[in-house]
Amino acid sequence: MVGWRDSNGDLIARQLSSKPRPYDAGGDGGKGLSHLCLERLAYVPVLPEVLRGKHEIVEGDSRECVGGHEVICGLFPRLSSPHGGHAPLRMVHVAPCAAPAEDQPQQRPLRLGVVLSGGQAPGGHNVIIGLHDYLQRWHPGSTLVGFLGGPAGVMNNRYKVLTADELDGYRNQGGFHLIGSGRDAIAKAEQLAAAEKTCLELDLDGIVVIGGDDSNTNSNTMAEHFLKQGLKTNVIGVPKTIDGDLKNTDVKASFGFDTACKVFSEMIGNIMIDAMSAKKYYHFVRLMGRAASHVTLECALQTHPQLALICEEVAAHRWGLKDVVRQVADMVAQRAELGKNFGVVLIPEGLVEFMHDVSELITELNELMAQGVNAHDQAEIIARLTPESADLFQNLTPGIRSELLEERDPHGNVQVSHIQTEKLLIKLVGQELMRRKAAGTYRGKFAALAHFFGYEGRCSLPSNFDATYCNALGQAAGALVASGRTGLMATVGNLAAPANKWTVGGTPLLSMMHLERRSGRDKPVIKKALVDLHGAAFTSYTSMRAIWAIQDWCRSPGPIQFKGPSADLATITLALEVNEGQPCLLQHLHDDE
Amino acid sequence: MVGWRDSNGDLIARQLSSKPRPYDAGGDGGKGLSHLCLERLAYVPVLPEVLRGKHEIVEGDSRECVGGHEVICGLFPRLSSPHGGHAPLRMVHVAPCAAPAEDQPQQRPLRLGVVLSGGQAPGGHNVIIGLHDYLQRWHPGSTLVGFLGGPAGVMNNRYKVLTADELDGYRNQGGFHLIGSGRDAIAKAEQLAAAEKTCLELDLDGIVVIGGDDSNTNSNTMAEHFLKQGLKTNVIGVPKTIDGDLKNTDVKASFGFDTACKVFSEMIGNIMIDAMSAKKYYHFVRLMGRAASHVTLECALQTHPQLALICEEVAAHRWGLKDVVRQVADMVAQRAELGKNFGVVLIPEGLVEFMHDVSELITELNELMAQGVNAHDQAEIIARLTPESADLFQNLTPGIRSELLEERDPHGNVQVSHIQTEKLLIKLVGQELMRRKAAGTYRGKFAALAHFFGYEGRCSLPSNFDATYCNALGQAAGALVASGRTGLMATVGNLAAPANKWTVGGTPLLSMMHLERRSGRDKPVIKKALVDLHGAAFTSYTSMRAIWAIQDWCRSPGPIQFKGPSADLATITLALEVNEGQPCLLQHLHDDE
Repeated sequence: MVGWRDSNGDLIARQLSSKPRPYDAGGDGGKGLSHLCLERLAYVPVLPEVLRGKHEIVEGDSRECVGGHEVICGLFPRLSSPHGGHAPLRMVHVAPCAAPAEDQPQQRPLRLGVVLSGGQAPGGHNVIIGLHDYLQRWHPGSTLVGFLGGPAGVMNNRYKVLTADELDGYRNQGGFHLIGSGRDAIAKAEQLAAAEKTCLELDLDGIVVIGGDDSNTNSNTMAEHFLKQGLKTNVIGVPKTIDGDLKNTDVKASFGFDTACKVFSEMIGNIMIDAMSAKKYYHFVRLMGRAASHVTLECALQTHPQLALICEEVAAHRWGLKDVVRQVADMVAQRAELGKNFGVVLIPEGLVEFMHDVSELITELNELMAQGVNAHDQAEIIARLTPESADLFQNLTPGIRSELLEERDPHGNVQVSHIQTEKLLIKLVGQELMRRKAAGTYRGKFAALAHFFGYEGRCSLPSNFDATYCNALGQAAGALVASGRTGLMATVGNLAAPANKWTVGGTPLLSMMHLERRSGRDKPVIKKALVDLHGAAFTSYTSMRAIWAIQDWCRSPGPIQFKGPSADLATITLALEVNEGQPCLLQHLHDDE
Repeated sequence: MVGWRDSNGDLIARQLSSKPRPYDAGGDGGKGLSHLCLERLAYVPVLPEVLRGKHEIVEGDSRECVGGHEVICGLFPRLSSPHGGHAPLRMVHVAPCAAPAEDQPQQRPLRLGVVLSGGQAPGGHNVIIGLHDYLQRWHPGSTLVGFLGGPAGVMNNRYKVLTADELDGYRNQGGFHLIGSGRDAIAKAEQLAAAEKTCLELDLDGIVVIGGDDSNTNSNTMAEHFLKQGLKTNVIGVPKTIDGDLKNTDVKASFGFDTACKVFSEMIGNIMIDAMSAKKYYHFVRLMGRAASHVTLECALQTHPQLALICEEVAAHRWGLKDVVRQVADMVAQRAELGKNFGVVLIPEGLVEFMHDVSELITELNELMAQGVNAHDQAEIIARLTPESADLFQNLTPGIRSELLEERDPHGNVQVSHIQTEKLLIKLVGQELMRRKAAGTYRGKFAALAHFFGYEGRCSLPSNFDATYCNALGQAAGALVASGRTGLMATVGNLAAPANKWTVGGTPLLSMMHLERRSGRDKPVIKKALVDLHGAAFTSYTSMRAIWAIQDWCRSPGPIQFKGPSADLATITLALEVNEGQPCLLQHLHDDE
């Protein structure tokens, strides 16, 4: 047998008994946290002032469901009626304590659980740490357990007790590896019963669910279920998703979006400068973000690409694949006339689902597969598609046809996130340009490279913004649970102000819901926030894109910094949405802490 | 027609006349340098002390060619004999000036050209700026022209005069877009004649070629040619390549390697933490670096992956594709026994060429193509391959077969850099694991994702190390040209010391050469530095890899920092090669400037 594995045992023994490698700053024989990770352990996020002294929860404005209010309230009768002595469907705020200290309720120790649900997002550890620090400060002697491997851990009662010592090693660190995550749902009767059993066994006062729209839709169901069963366990959600599509009037941002967009923008900026330097390639960059195009839009504002496709616009205009291909080809042809045969195109991961013809084709394919048609029998499949879909299918590349037929999720549906849309577009744009060349309307060169960024941005060290925002969210979740509230999402607001002036509170999960047609039935779910085509972020882009298409005003944001003037800047999207375009800055004010 | 382009003119006009967008820090209506790029403009690299005061060039040790000394000297009779009043084949150093100031030769204005050759590498602009600053300080009134689009610009006499004003906008910035680059060679008689014509027309005292081993092989030829023709134009090379394979006794590092490895390591570290958090995927990451595996090795030392394939080791053991697949599968199987079905595998871009069977197949395919065999006729191709190659070819995936046949460079050869080795390995490892599962020797799950990083690291903002190193290299090149030397590569040494103590000089390009068999002939070329299997970098990796394979000691280096303790650290490779494993730190000492 070839290779170095023959002497494994020896090597391991020798290494572990030897002194630490000198290049390893951790001094732990190759395990090492990197120098920067070690530096980040010492970062202290600014805590909003309102959480620094004695505080209480006060009720604010009432809220209605985003849609289908009556129906949804009917489905969640306890959450939509007064419960636990609290009015339903109200925003709440953490406010400085009005009552004298001696009148404060006793700060008894609490028993809390926390779970990470769904895809990774930078800052998750800081939410847990914020929650922990809140309990330590205001409810000393409390116990915090972290459920392992996501919601499955809640249902199977698999957890570990989170101690200050262990958590100190995860401060401001990326990843979800402290307790892991998972994509299981707690939604059906038996799942809810399993979760209930765990909460009873662990005698939990509350459970904090760190997740996206689907996970928090389930948090709402769990909150209702626990109320119905008379459990004391309160359920609080925390808005997590790099996609940035979990936001509304009260939730101004989901955590992780800031950092992930900055990581992607760093890469895109580098590629843009490379395109401009080498002058020979178009780079087609697909970006994570399946339902909404916030990530692509933020990256476009950060980097000024020649074209960024935005799913919501594609859907609004009912553009099909040909329309999209024509737009890209138009841009390439326009630049060729200026002697430029290079550039960058940004493509949201979900694009295929938003082009009406491709979306229709996928629906038809899903139905055929459900009927048991052989995925390898393309002739049979083509025969059973509608003529339009059959035509489209036959014009796709063989690779994409295979991906559509063979990459299927556990439910048997086409796995849209595995479709290499960037390669499909390169191929089709190339064909379109060949046609134009033959017709004499295009005389450029078209060579293109494909990229996909997603996993790169989910577990990076959280930016100062995400580190600070997550810590505040965790503390907010602690305050909400401690106050006996349930069915709320933790919120941190006033983000245009420095972090010490941020507001903290909660908003009813119920108020974020509407009715969505799923599998032929109206289902109450948290409404995803799509890109608003009249919003400041999109119109900022549209006001510039015709120029960015032909000029090379590439902007390279560079790597995320943790020190220096640019370290405390939040996203351009946030600046446009909450601060009239002025940069949102943390503006650390450690001196007043 | 769909889309937003209908009203282009309007939008452009409105935008350009309006006030700058508030989110745009550059205040130039969307053109903007990013905040961080603006910050970096103000960074002042430490200048080695020896360049701060009056200095002169002194001759050091003599050098011989790496191989074929006699033959190569015969081919370059002028460079290998005394020329321009200087001894041939000698290292030179910049040293504090021994003679009193009044005896100094007059610092007359010089006319210099500079050209970027080959692929982008972070720091290129700083070389040009270092050169410019040297001329401004020591030869005021000098003219520096930058040739446009690489060596083609030299041959076509396309250039722009580089002024202080313009260069100030490129200080410490990534990319080669100031003057562009290109891959043309100046090697044949007519190319040399064209370059000669330009140098005469521009009356150049010297030309500085910023390039890799091939480009500098040509610099040496150009230096010899200019001597032969009696031109005054001296030729000086600067070692540039992110691959890190242009180094020797005198050249301790090529610029760009530091930054590019850090960018790739940032991404790999993020992916490793993601793998460890989600616990469901293997990530196969291919990295740029075709001939040598320095990049993969440095990234492995930075991030501690479960496996990093190193081409030089593959070649040394004459491993074939099956051996490599078996190694990866062994690691996956070993981890499965520990309940771990996730991890990260690093793959150097050039791997396919280093596996003896694949390399043989590629050679045979290149020959068949040269004979005019139809790339689409796979049956014919298989019939004409040797039995071993035919067998291997038939076992490849259809996608890889197409890449081998259809992706060809201008010379008709297989375009190795376009082969998605990571996908090939995923497929074959998956098949191997299926066999083991059937045999009952493996019970894990194997789901894998593919990544390729290359373009992302070539044009990023240079690290503090590269910014400082490049500035010193540019200044060194200026000192060499000014001294009337030709055929040297600029060198900066003593890199284990703080940057103010770095040494500066040059080494004969001729001494870096050996004879290499190319197209059936011995050709004198600069010898690429491959990974030394007995060197400190590789043995550091081998001493740990058995542990990293099974433990999850992932190390996430995080984004490059420009401020703070980790900002001034160079690569682990450099630490091991020049500083016995102790970190190389710039340790800025601005106070003594």
